[in-house]
Amino acid sequence: MTLAENRIGLIAGSGPFPILFAKKAAARGYEVFAAAFHHETDPALAGHVAAMEVLHLGQVGRLTRFFRKHGVQSAVMVGAIQKPRAASEIRPDIKALSLLAAVRKDTHDDRLLRAFARFLEKEGIIVRSSTFLLPELLARPGCWTRKKPSKKERSDILLGWQKAKAIGALDIGQCVVVENGSVLAVEAIDGTDATIKRGGGLGRGNAVVVKVCKPIQDFRFDVPAVGARTIEIMHECGGRVLIVEAGRSLVFDREEMVKLADQYGISIEALADMQEQSQKKQG
Amino acid sequence: MTLAENRIGLIAGSGPFPILFAKKAAARGYEVFAAAFHHETDPALAGHVAAMEVLHLGQVGRLTRFFRKHGVQSAVMVGAIQKPRAASEIRPDIKALSLLAAVRKDTHDDRLLRAFARFLEKEGIIVRSSTFLLPELLARPGCWTRKKPSKKERSDILLGWQKAKAIGALDIGQCVVVENGSVLAVEAIDGTDATIKRGGGLGRGNAVVVKVCKPIQDFRFDVPAVGARTIEIMHECGGRVLIVEAGRSLVFDREEMVKLADQYGISIEALADMQEQSQKKQG
Repeated sequence: MTLAENRIGLIAGSGPFPILFAKKAAARGYEVFAAAFHHETDPALAGHVAAMEVLHLGQVGRLTRFFRKHGVQSAVMVGAIQKPRAASEIRPDIKALSLLAAVRKDTHDDRLLRAFARFLEKEGIIVRSSTFLLPELLARPGCWTRKKPSKKERSDILLGWQKAKAIGALDIGQCVVVENGSVLAVEAIDGTDATIKRGGGLGRGNAVVVKVCKPIQDFRFDVPAVGARTIEIMHECGGRVLIVEAGRSLVFDREEMVKLADQYGISIEALADMQEQSQKKQG
Repeated sequence: MTLAENRIGLIAGSGPFPILFAKKAAARGYEVFAAAFHHETDPALAGHVAAMEVLHLGQVGRLTRFFRKHGVQSAVMVGAIQKPRAASEIRPDIKALSLLAAVRKDTHDDRLLRAFARFLEKEGIIVRSSTFLLPELLARPGCWTRKKPSKKERSDILLGWQKAKAIGALDIGQCVVVENGSVLAVEAIDGTDATIKRGGGLGRGNAVVVKVCKPIQDFRFDVPAVGARTIEIMHECGGRVLIVEAGRSLVFDREEMVKLADQYGISIEALADMQEQSQKKQG
């Protein structure tokens, strides 16, 4: 690898995934430079990267200067950035203001991120999917756990898949929680963990969690990710089956995740498409 | 009125609406006979009806015997019945078991209610829309409050309407909470109050709440209802605009509701259809 190819920028949101990503990337010989955010990024990330700059939301100029200083030419976005509650949490610099102006009125998450990615490209930093350097993180098809979904659960899986795809098509969220033929919870801006807690809490301890890609998903950001923490949350609140989309979801800590699921008697399955499920249901 | 026409059965779920219905019906000269449910119905309903029988979910035979004893030939369903968490809360009698068997595997709310309505009709009790005797409860088109939605809010109203209709078409829920172009929360089995609390809590104090009918809505049950409590909840958690569907939503306590909204500076508007809003947005 040349110097630049060896270096990767990590635009790090909340949750455990930025650290998991940094560890995996380091293990593969990458030097990781992290742009972190106040109130969002786990400060412990600093211990797993070559350098880290902690920013306020909106400090786009500082972000590009940081990456340039370290010779970073491509970056990934890992972890969610919540929309700030208070305007005071955002400190838009001049570059951020011109970026926001370009997004027009529609502030829906993906559009803002796409505009941000376009902006970074103009500044010489290519935003890539986090899977381009770690393709092994993509969910492999099949059932990963000792426990397989039951015939009764298959019916909820099918329902949940259909609803989750429809919710994704509406650009609302990626995850639904289903039990006994009813949709218990739909993810919106609150995120998957909160949705699982809510849905599980409304069920009778047999919830099926389905997390899928949007029909139009930009794989540079917000790729559906699951991990050991997902299984812990499911265990706490009555989730019995986790369904993800094979080849289109990220798993940063698969081994630990499957070990936990086996311990709790939870099933994890990665499905390729509706067709596959319909066939399984008939079989 | 003949004796039977004067008597109305009230199958009473949770929340304030059964009592509000009973008061309105009594004021119009109806004798109300309430079938209430343990852990669901406000016991105070007993003070507003001619007679009340408190049942466990599933005691269908007792319910029909109660109505027959009092010469009730038509009934309305008001208020939500949550799906019970524990099987021990349901005490299905023989009639309920035959009813459940007829619903087959699909236990989605509306189907179960439709099957229940068909069953009651066979038993000589017609289930009617709660608006058949109180048509004045239907939401009148237009803005009801001193404060009108702003131009910026109109854009969220349009987005919310589209998403809520789509969520309804998926048979998931009736209500969404929107702010600044993002869907903050989607109602599933948790109900409207919980959805407003959640969505409002995730916003910045300018949430638009849209509650609509499903494209295919059986008006005998689960007609979207709002009231003073809706406004109280919105006030507590940053809801600024409430949109309902004109002529297809129930309002049991309109005067108190509008008074509260005026006090809090909240807008309430009942819209007839998408077309109307698109025109307003362009205007």
